[in-house]
Amino acid sequence: MTLDENWFSEICSERGSAFSLKITEKLHTEQSEFQYIEIFQTETFGKLMVIDGFTMLSSFDNFLYHEMLAHPALFIHDAPQKVLIIGGGDCGTLREVLKHDSVKEAHQVDIDECVTRISEKFFPELCTSNNDARASLHFDDGIKWVKNAKAGEYDLIIIDSTDPVGPAEGLFTEKFYRDCHHALGDNGILVQQSESPLFHMGIIKPIRDAMYSAGFPSQLTINFPQCIYPSGWWSATLSGKNKVALEKFREQDVDQRSFETRYYNSAIHRAAMAQPEFMLRELEMRDEK
Amino acid sequence: MTLDENWFSEICSERGSAFSLKITEKLHTEQSEFQYIEIFQTETFGKLMVIDGFTMLSSFDNFLYHEMLAHPALFIHDAPQKVLIIGGGDCGTLREVLKHDSVKEAHQVDIDECVTRISEKFFPELCTSNNDARASLHFDDGIKWVKNAKAGEYDLIIIDSTDPVGPAEGLFTEKFYRDCHHALGDNGILVQQSESPLFHMGIIKPIRDAMYSAGFPSQLTINFPQCIYPSGWWSATLSGKNKVALEKFREQDVDQRSFETRYYNSAIHRAAMAQPEFMLRELEMRDEK
Repeated sequence: MTLDENWFSEICSERGSAFSLKITEKLHTEQSEFQYIEIFQTETFGKLMVIDGFTMLSSFDNFLYHEMLAHPALFIHDAPQKVLIIGGGDCGTLREVLKHDSVKEAHQVDIDECVTRISEKFFPELCTSNNDARASLHFDDGIKWVKNAKAGEYDLIIIDSTDPVGPAEGLFTEKFYRDCHHALGDNGILVQQSESPLFHMGIIKPIRDAMYSAGFPSQLTINFPQCIYPSGWWSATLSGKNKVALEKFREQDVDQRSFETRYYNSAIHRAAMAQPEFMLRELEMRDEK
Repeated sequence: MTLDENWFSEICSERGSAFSLKITEKLHTEQSEFQYIEIFQTETFGKLMVIDGFTMLSSFDNFLYHEMLAHPALFIHDAPQKVLIIGGGDCGTLREVLKHDSVKEAHQVDIDECVTRISEKFFPELCTSNNDARASLHFDDGIKWVKNAKAGEYDLIIIDSTDPVGPAEGLFTEKFYRDCHHALGDNGILVQQSESPLFHMGIIKPIRDAMYSAGFPSQLTINFPQCIYPSGWWSATLSGKNKVALEKFREQDVDQRSFETRYYNSAIHRAAMAQPEFMLRELEMRDEK
């Protein structure tokens, strides 16, 4: 029953749980300027990227996360043209964003170029849009990038970051969200990956509070399965600038979309907005304070 | 990164994945007539029941599974009065079923009395309805029980079983579903726990096919998170006798229910019915054959 060196395990220490994948080969390791990156060949999940000991993505199940980080917000916005992705160096979110014909420009700003170079080698299927004329890949500090952005420059900002510890910590603060608010257009939407509803309401609530304090009047946390992340259940929290009605989306456009998805469709979009009883209770507590 | 003897790991060998919980104490082990049962104290998930090496339930997250096995079907049926639970020896499903005032009688038939006695000791919160006057607990063969049931005796049959290997194998067959069909009333509903949408479409499809072949014209697979089960994402497959419209439910009654839930509500009920793109594709393939 014990897992030997043929398994990669990510321990979620605060919850005393772990998720493991059986490994057949270590394909690559690299200490970048910012983090320690490993690529494993797994037995059944394809390739696995691990950063500083945390599973980032597998070939098998990354579609869940990448589709849900991109499409709900893109279909809530009336006509998203200019999109900023902070983090997302594996390029999977960028690929989903560029499936939308309305998008004229997508900037990806990840601090660590190594992640992208490694992804191009080991996850080429995620990098098929890197050379799209609408895409520009920048290897820079996302916090600085947003601070220097023009007022109202972006329709969407997607924060596709690691957990709120280490290099990504500054991406979960009111100060940063305030800069995002400034960089977003009138109907702009901010999307932040926001951890597990089952494990991390203590992170989700502060994210929502910080977004609210930063000037976003409405928040919506959407939930979806994500096998390799702690608890197997994950979320993204969306904030709308001004009076964006986050619960409305271009349903007909979803149904008539010109591209393929593997998880997302209009029924899944609606489903992702459903808040379990325990979330309603915990979030109401926040709203009452 | 390797997990030592302070962890309990369930390996999902066909998928090369594993889920582990940190253990502080082994509280109980017992070889019953049918299976090997272990109870662990975990660090953060409360108590954990393991049968033949497979995690059955934890104090922390069993509410997801038990609520979703019971309430959707109970609120689809117009007025469920008599309910049969096959398996379910931990009594968590029974507790949820008996929250419904319309239910006049609930029969629980688990082959292994040890599971119930152990649950009464280590999961007393799941057994609070065991002495309800409407409940009767039988320790018997569920297949035989259903075979001997009167025609149209039950409004609902819930198969709350282990995986389709070993003792529970016979609960996943057309023959058994045919007997369920006979034992269900005109608007009767059959509920079967049906494994992971991400890992086990190869089990879900045959379950749906077998139910259809057994005379149930319509099937509905509902999805929900379940952290400790393989992939962290689970399903139940419902079949309606005659022309039960499985996609309709007593939404107003859900919203005005007299009892508490932690996951289930009307939005979650609707959400659980959403079929991801990959499921639609795989299930359409079935329907075309």
